[in-house]
Amino acid sequence: MRISHLFTKTSKSAPADEVAKNAQLLIRAGFVYKEMAGAYAYLPLGIRVIEKIKHIVREEMNAIDSNELIMTSLQRREIWEKTGRWNDDVVDVWFKTRLKDDTEVGLGWSHEEPIVEMLKQYVHSYKDLPISLYQFQTKMRNELRAKSGIMRGREFIMKDMYSFHTSADDLEAYYNRTIEAYKRVYDRLGIGADTYVTFASGGAFTKFSHEFQTICDAGEDVIYLHRGKNIAVNEEVIDDAVRELGISRDELEQVKTAEVGNIFNFGSQKAEEMGLDFVDADDSAHPVFMGSYGIGVTRVMGVIAEKLSDDKGLVWPEAIAPANVYLVSIGKDDAIGHADELYDELQAKGIEVLYDDRDVRPGEKFSDSELIGIPHRVTVSDRLIAENQYEYTERVSGETILLTREQLLAKLS
Amino acid sequence: MRISHLFTKTSKSAPADEVAKNAQLLIRAGFVYKEMAGAYAYLPLGIRVIEKIKHIVREEMNAIDSNELIMTSLQRREIWEKTGRWNDDVVDVWFKTRLKDDTEVGLGWSHEEPIVEMLKQYVHSYKDLPISLYQFQTKMRNELRAKSGIMRGREFIMKDMYSFHTSADDLEAYYNRTIEAYKRVYDRLGIGADTYVTFASGGAFTKFSHEFQTICDAGEDVIYLHRGKNIAVNEEVIDDAVRELGISRDELEQVKTAEVGNIFNFGSQKAEEMGLDFVDADDSAHPVFMGSYGIGVTRVMGVIAEKLSDDKGLVWPEAIAPANVYLVSIGKDDAIGHADELYDELQAKGIEVLYDDRDVRPGEKFSDSELIGIPHRVTVSDRLIAENQYEYTERVSGETILLTREQLLAKLS
Repeated sequence: MRISHLFTKTSKSAPADEVAKNAQLLIRAGFVYKEMAGAYAYLPLGIRVIEKIKHIVREEMNAIDSNELIMTSLQRREIWEKTGRWNDDVVDVWFKTRLKDDTEVGLGWSHEEPIVEMLKQYVHSYKDLPISLYQFQTKMRNELRAKSGIMRGREFIMKDMYSFHTSADDLEAYYNRTIEAYKRVYDRLGIGADTYVTFASGGAFTKFSHEFQTICDAGEDVIYLHRGKNIAVNEEVIDDAVRELGISRDELEQVKTAEVGNIFNFGSQKAEEMGLDFVDADDSAHPVFMGSYGIGVTRVMGVIAEKLSDDKGLVWPEAIAPANVYLVSIGKDDAIGHADELYDELQAKGIEVLYDDRDVRPGEKFSDSELIGIPHRVTVSDRLIAENQYEYTERVSGETILLTREQLLAKLS
Repeated sequence: MRISHLFTKTSKSAPADEVAKNAQLLIRAGFVYKEMAGAYAYLPLGIRVIEKIKHIVREEMNAIDSNELIMTSLQRREIWEKTGRWNDDVVDVWFKTRLKDDTEVGLGWSHEEPIVEMLKQYVHSYKDLPISLYQFQTKMRNELRAKSGIMRGREFIMKDMYSFHTSADDLEAYYNRTIEAYKRVYDRLGIGADTYVTFASGGAFTKFSHEFQTICDAGEDVIYLHRGKNIAVNEEVIDDAVRELGISRDELEQVKTAEVGNIFNFGSQKAEEMGLDFVDADDSAHPVFMGSYGIGVTRVMGVIAEKLSDDKGLVWPEAIAPANVYLVSIGKDDAIGHADELYDELQAKGIEVLYDDRDVRPGEKFSDSELIGIPHRVTVSDRLIAENQYEYTERVSGETILLTREQLLAKLS
């Protein structure tokens, strides 16, 4: 894409009321636009990042035999009353509104209840199980304060998955398979090395649930980490964890983190509350076992923006960058013609290029390339063309080297 | 996909309160689930159709230099008050709710106002224009009655595009380019032959806007068609059209139709109301010219379900069918092994197969294949394997022929 065709412009400042670094950078670089606190539009650069994150998550969920669907935002009161979660004192993030006939409806902040209700229509026998379903859906949560940019929004995109099983063992096996799938997601997103499966408080059914916590100075959480044993626990369960996992408190390092996923074993609790039963081979009826697994897509984008950025701007991992290469032309006709040609050639090879074809100072192009955070920058100038060379700069390290055309193409392929 | 892995089941009946044929068929065949009147979940078969429609629309919008983004559902009151459209007497489909601090917010039913407001941040000079932006967004409309299935929902997916120009001429040129892009969309969706660009009532700025109306017995609209001159007009503007387009009333045929798109020339009206100006080359300031262009993605899916179905069920056009081939195995080990192999081979060739691997009667497989509406059905049976033959049935015509393996592969490629 040519930057001259991009309607957004970079800016030196973010809205005065925006305190979160992730949103400040994303707004300044033209990835998002703030509609109101906790609600952001995703502009052409931003939607590319979202689609790449979704693509990775989708592949990994499909690989564990989950099927994609999409539920509704509008929620019926009577479904949520079955579990007591319609009550604003129990769930304090509901947005509620009314149909024309004055029926009160909610806007979905999660989808356990409606998916259980729906499955009552499709699940009857043990032969109908297991089932795993996921969606990318825009959740609405009426947060009291929304000051963390896209890390905690009133409106945000979430991948939520729900699995249904005939037994606690089958659920646990799938739960563990999902942990491995989530690890692959974070590896592919470029944050696998310091993202930890973290023991968190469970529910009526299990002692622990699990969060995925990534090290992040701006994170809202703190975890206790045993690097040697690769064990992480959150504060709520530290006493239980010390007792049960054979670790001592003194060995634990306190680290600031941001949550990038969570998974929860509901056991048969939801099915019991809502009446989702199956008939087993021996004709006996039992409640279905259920797990729930979430990754906030826009939240993860915000965490990565926050965690990997530096004082010059955003630093996107290769797999989710809005483009692979930031192409800069410096000079007049020769450099422009040459850059045009390289742009076409790279795009034809499937390498996505953000081509800074604007008639502005080189310094402005360089600082924008750093703010936007594309992994590789290639500069074409009149002087370098004469020497059959290109200037190549790696965003993450800032290192600049000169390469021949052949070396450049090898590096970018 | 193997049908044994699909959690949905076909059924002989739809919910008693569902009066629309499109929703009855889509529910019975397992494409959608009714959450409440006007709000449907899209199940694995349904989301495949949606994604294919989006893919076609996305390609055609990109081809006319539009850029994808996604705006928020949450809407600020003050933006819509600028044009008088916050008022429930002016716009009677608002869903409204409140933030924790009691600020009233709306849920987006269209996005002209917020996109104009946003562009005030990015558009200053004539050099910043033209701009065209589109999104696939879930619209919320508080319809008094929602009885048309997915053809008119309270919650539905829409592609809405907005374009911005320095002059009425430039806007008109883009408007006409969009008409051609929309025609390509309907051609690719398989309904181009009887979808008409229809003159409809304009606004303050233009005499006519345009709707895209497709012939459909269950449609909510009536158009007046001059088949010879390929001119269609709706009832509101029939007098003007007769006067201006050189046609006589007697030549017009009255036809029932469903709207599948609409486009609207706002002139500079919105920009004037909201203060979106640009500075021209001569330093003079002018309001921006704006067009608005919509295609209801889930609505189009419903119209196609309604329009192309027959007494046996759905009939999907090739380009948006959830799979290309419905594969049926009849018999025991030989047929199953053979069908398994054919399934793998077709999938490897990029031909999407819905494989009915269930242990049920052949008649049930055949009637489900008709209800689900996959374009091509291939039957593998013990008897046919012995003769090196496959039974091939075309969904749209119902014609069945016997083919050798080579003939079958040629037909499906």
